[in-house]
Amino acid sequence: MFQPSSPISVAVLGATGSVGQRFMSLLDNHPWFKVVALAASDRSVGQVYSTASRWVLAEPMPEWARGMTVVSALPEAVDAKIVFSALPADLAKNIEPKFAQAGMAVFSNASSYRRADDVPLLLPEVNADHIALVPEQRKLRGWSGSIVTNPNCTSAGLTVALKALQNNFGIKRAFVVSLQALSGAGYPGVPSMDINDNVIPYIGGEEEKVEWEPRKMLGKLNNNKIELADLTMSAHTNRVAVTDGHTVCVSVELTQPTSPEAAIQALKSYLAPAAARDLPSAPKPVIVLRDEADRPQPRLDRMTGRGMTTVIGRVRPDPIFHLRFVVLSHNTIRGAAGGSIYNAELFVNNGLL
Amino acid sequence: MFQPSSPISVAVLGATGSVGQRFMSLLDNHPWFKVVALAASDRSVGQVYSTASRWVLAEPMPEWARGMTVVSALPEAVDAKIVFSALPADLAKNIEPKFAQAGMAVFSNASSYRRADDVPLLLPEVNADHIALVPEQRKLRGWSGSIVTNPNCTSAGLTVALKALQNNFGIKRAFVVSLQALSGAGYPGVPSMDINDNVIPYIGGEEEKVEWEPRKMLGKLNNNKIELADLTMSAHTNRVAVTDGHTVCVSVELTQPTSPEAAIQALKSYLAPAAARDLPSAPKPVIVLRDEADRPQPRLDRMTGRGMTTVIGRVRPDPIFHLRFVVLSHNTIRGAAGGSIYNAELFVNNGLL
Amino acid sequence: MFQPSSPISVAVLGATGSVGQRFMSLLDNHPWFKVVALAASDRSVGQVYSTASRWVLAEPMPEWARGMTVVSALPEAVDAKIVFSALPADLAKNIEPKFAQAGMAVFSNASSYRRADDVPLLLPEVNADHIALVPEQRKLRGWSGSIVTNPNCTSAGLTVALKALQNNFGIKRAFVVSLQALSGAGYPGVPSMDINDNVIPYIGGEEEKVEWEPRKMLGKLNNNKIELADLTMSAHTNRVAVTDGHTVCVSVELTQPTSPEAAIQALKSYLAPAAARDLPSAPKPVIVLRDEADRPQPRLDRMTGRGMTTVIGRVRPDPIFHLRFVVLSHNTIRGAAGGSIYNAELFVNNGLL
Amino acid sequence: MFQPSSPISVAVLGATGSVGQRFMSLLDNHPWFKVVALAASDRSVGQVYSTASRWVLAEPMPEWARGMTVVSALPEAVDAKIVFSALPADLAKNIEPKFAQAGMAVFSNASSYRRADDVPLLLPEVNADHIALVPEQRKLRGWSGSIVTNPNCTSAGLTVALKALQNNFGIKRAFVVSLQALSGAGYPGVPSMDINDNVIPYIGGEEEKVEWEPRKMLGKLNNNKIELADLTMSAHTNRVAVTDGHTVCVSVELTQPTSPEAAIQALKSYLAPAAARDLPSAPKPVIVLRDEADRPQPRLDRMTGRGMTTVIGRVRPDPIFHLRFVVLSHNTIRGAAGGSIYNAELFVNNGLL
Repeated sequence: MFQPSSPISVAVLGATGSVGQRFMSLLDNHPWFKVVALAASDRSVGQVYSTASRWVLAEPMPEWARGMTVVSALPEAVDAKIVFSALPADLAKNIEPKFAQAGMAVFSNASSYRRADDVPLLLPEVNADHIALVPEQRKLRGWSGSIVTNPNCTSAGLTVALKALQNNFGIKRAFVVSLQALSGAGYPGVPSMDINDNVIPYIGGEEEKVEWEPRKMLGKLNNNKIELADLTMSAHTNRVAVTDGHTVCVSVELTQPTSPEAAIQALKSYLAPAAARDLPSAPKPVIVLRDEADRPQPRLDRMTGRGMTTVIGRVRPDPIFHLRFVVLSHNTIRGAAGGSIYNAELFVNNGLL
Repeated sequence: MFQPSSPISVAVLGATGSVGQRFMSLLDNHPWFKVVALAASDRSVGQVYSTASRWVLAEPMPEWARGMTVVSALPEAVDAKIVFSALPADLAKNIEPKFAQAGMAVFSNASSYRRADDVPLLLPEVNADHIALVPEQRKLRGWSGSIVTNPNCTSAGLTVALKALQNNFGIKRAFVVSLQALSGAGYPGVPSMDINDNVIPYIGGEEEKVEWEPRKMLGKLNNNKIELADLTMSAHTNRVAVTDGHTVCVSVELTQPTSPEAAIQALKSYLAPAAARDLPSAPKPVIVLRDEADRPQPRLDRMTGRGMTTVIGRVRPDPIFHLRFVVLSHNTIRGAAGGSIYNAELFVNNGLL
Repeated sequence: MFQPSSPISVAVLGATGSVGQRFMSLLDNHPWFKVVALAASDRSVGQVYSTASRWVLAEPMPEWARGMTVVSALPEAVDAKIVFSALPADLAKNIEPKFAQAGMAVFSNASSYRRADDVPLLLPEVNADHIALVPEQRKLRGWSGSIVTNPNCTSAGLTVALKALQNNFGIKRAFVVSLQALSGAGYPGVPSMDINDNVIPYIGGEEEKVEWEPRKMLGKLNNNKIELADLTMSAHTNRVAVTDGHTVCVSVELTQPTSPEAAIQALKSYLAPAAARDLPSAPKPVIVLRDEADRPQPRLDRMTGRGMTTVIGRVRPDPIFHLRFVVLSHNTIRGAAGGSIYNAELFVNNGLL
Repeated sequence: MFQPSSPISVAVLGATGSVGQRFMSLLDNHPWFKVVALAASDRSVGQVYSTASRWVLAEPMPEWARGMTVVSALPEAVDAKIVFSALPADLAKNIEPKFAQAGMAVFSNASSYRRADDVPLLLPEVNADHIALVPEQRKLRGWSGSIVTNPNCTSAGLTVALKALQNNFGIKRAFVVSLQALSGAGYPGVPSMDINDNVIPYIGGEEEKVEWEPRKMLGKLNNNKIELADLTMSAHTNRVAVTDGHTVCVSVELTQPTSPEAAIQALKSYLAPAAARDLPSAPKPVIVLRDEADRPQPRLDRMTGRGMTTVIGRVRPDPIFHLRFVVLSHNTIRGAAGGSIYNAELFVNNGLL
């Protein structure tokens, strides 16, 4: 496999936020990438990172980051080949294209460009081939750089599960209900008074994303266009008092009905496309099946495969559709920063840098 | 309305457990009923209640209960007209019929007799007319007493919501996903190590109950038989770190599709059957509609209508079925002890004692 | 006792915040007071209250409040005899004196004037006589109105406990460690990511308040001056994941050592000064002693005496000082809004309006 | 340093409980030890471990453990040189001596023998020299094996902090208030209904242990006897809703008063005794000082030094004694299983096996 002759320079935009911190933690000791710039909002610019950031992860702040000076989120302030963006969607919309135009490869967690026809919405273990949109994007937009996005944190694990079923049995419709972790809302995010001893049965904009994003990722690339998968979804999204790890209850209608046993077999044996299989951040394995009656659970299962593996359990018949099951994935690793890094690895490995 | 000339004597079986405690708290100052006996398992018998019980409610233990001596859960140890049973299902199965045979009217929270053809599964605001099974039951079983059951705590609020829709639009199928409170598992119930910073996506036996019980309550009484409603349900049940209040996400297919606005109107204007409307424990109103984007929430809404009202919000179109919404009800009040007391009030008011 | 011939007009400053909401909930159906104005920050002014406020209490928003238009926190915008201030300390410092100058009686939760020599820091069940500073304050400051403050939420219950001991045995030194509820930090307050599965062993400015405020309240009024009690305190303050109710572990050195039994007797029989005993918000009783090994607990005991009673347990010998025990009180009722209303009742009853 | 020529055989008693599981997780890939037997209560005996144990750790069950057959906690059923005991105190009392008599070196988490004169109560980074009691113990009791104990989980980190201060300034008295994690109560342990949205200000037997155990560990070994340190402690112990990590607020009186800065320097530079410094489980470093205003915090700091490091913060003057600060340590790693393994390493390295 690819091994860069020297480390590839990367920057993190939105480095002081919770997803930004996760990026830095995951990039610590990365075999290919070296963080050379940390960018954040104006009130942090000029401060050293250890002062500018209120670190919220249990993993310690990497030593190399402590003394780095935070710079502006502008291409002229950043000299890197790859840019990981943990910016909020409204800022990302204007800022990310500037980096792409300046020749940098942007890997974004923001929702701003997920629906753009020429922007890959990428889970390498699902739709590695969609990376082929990049040359088209460059041509269309006249960029020497590019933007590649990763899905919303709930869509990530869900789509991995659906993909394994789609490949084997086809999927037509799905009901999904999420129980989402606090870290998905960033920091300061959800006030403790709102969630202690409570559930919030609403997350703004989330249901629309969960109902649409899997259709693009499960879609076919044809002639430089992605045909959305012919799949109808209904999503209810809820916030619960869990630090990390989104739990999703799913009922699916298949094109070819099958037994839970056959579905379990298909999920268990699912492999990432060859191009995405051996990358440094590739989930090993892509899917873990738990056979206990009461798993997966976020506290116990979120760190499976260093937080990149999708964990599935309770596969059983559904009285209305064909199958139902529970999916768990780590929302700030597989569902955010880890996914973005995995995307960048695929990109580099495909020679697109 | 009915007003007894003197208080009606009642006993609580399983008085030391968490549902037993809720019974006692709700029976404190009840206008019709007076608790004359507290029964529990052998290890509590002979102790005064304040010693035998580890009180887990925020409402204080009623003064009259402190010094009562706990008796055996046997008809010969209890001299009461009405018996509220908070026994576990395996014990209830053998014990409750003995009380019925001895002439007492048993109102049970246990699942043991919910599926029996001649036993009403009762939510007075939904199917007050099913109480008419009681004379038939007495005849069939040769009892001078009777058994009346209330549904599982998740089925309760859910069925109230479905009933209002059924009356107006008919219902055919429903997906339901619950986020259930800790008190639903009794005491000691769920270990804190299992639920702190966690979700448990499984509650033993619960999904089967949620998929079946509403069908009986929404069914028609014909010729002393209940025809199950022609309704197919798929349930996923989850435990979350909430003290009280079950939240349920519901997607429904109607016989006559309608708009969210019309559904809201139907839910809001739903009235209990006349016989159940003015009883002491009747929910006032039966349903409250919240119009905020993020309600109902268990901490904020569970005590609506002193815990007897069903609270509904987020009524909106469903991409697969017709409508989706969120239902909240208090699991140990409307979903357990309060519901059972309401059943007894209907029973007494109907002259069945 | 006093009964006003017509309701006394009151206003709430900072009405949209969490303490402001608690004021409104407690003033709902108050026998003496009628809310005529709700004031808040500029971004709320002109909106109706139901729109301006994100209601965070489980008790519903009072009906009369929903349609009231929020006004500015300026005396010219408010026509009331009494003003309850739930303003943050920095704003309170400038705004409260304007109301006092304009002739209104201000009852403040803010810390801004607690240390002023001529401002009573008041717990009616402890130091009702300190209200006598008001005429002096008016003279000194040339105000027709006045400012009366209540202590920090942790000092409140703690000082009630210390007062009962001081009266009987004298107190010299105390170690106190608090486990404080989330609502004490207001709304949005503590981010859930900071407190879920966690403890924060620090609350800014809190330890200084807890070490000083009890000295003023336990001090003697002499010649219109308060002599601080000769008491040395050491406080550690912690935030825990509890919605309401501050728990405080206390070890005290007494002037006259005594047994736990005698201390329990002194605590149990403590009565508020006569002037404060029968007011509408007076705690009944002032102190409740729990004799279980593991009480008081916030979830179970915070609503004792409608949230106004101080609950004490685990009174036992201390290996270093003389006694140790646990104190619990409701931080937004006895420790904030309820305490302020109680102060106003004492004020009115003493003919100071 | 010592390196065994072949792996040393070890057994775990009480292997199915939560501390037992932590032992197995920490022994996975241990450089010196190899688990050859898992013992538990009769109802587990004969089952394979994966069936017998309800695994509650986020770290996965070691592969080698899944298929091992659980044996009785009797010396004749166990062929190992070292035995790690996670038995409850009442069972440990009778069972552990049998293993010692049979020639095995028992390392116990139970409190049963902590107070015995001839049994080391050991924290290697504090009192490694106390291991010298072992030969005396063997002689006195006629055992070819031995028992070595580790302290209660709250005493562990606390004593490390006190030791560093004792060495430099001497210590006379200390007030300590703990906020203890759920895992300290084992499994099922604390019912979620007791701790959700709550604090329990009581842990049975804990305060006595915390007030006594540090005195033995900080005591001097003289002539094969330990003279208890001349230190008076007052402890309040509380349970909070945290999965792992005990937080302790401490106020100390020193023999030679000093400044916070000097204390911080002493804590930071504390080194384990040479014999304990380079063992596989030695904390690296022994103490970490956090300089943020609000640290240490259990969720963020418990895994410092792989859970073996004691984390201290908020070192500041105390108004009554000399200094106050906050100590955090991982209760099931440094405070239980990890500490026991560290003890065994010291024992083996000292040639006592």
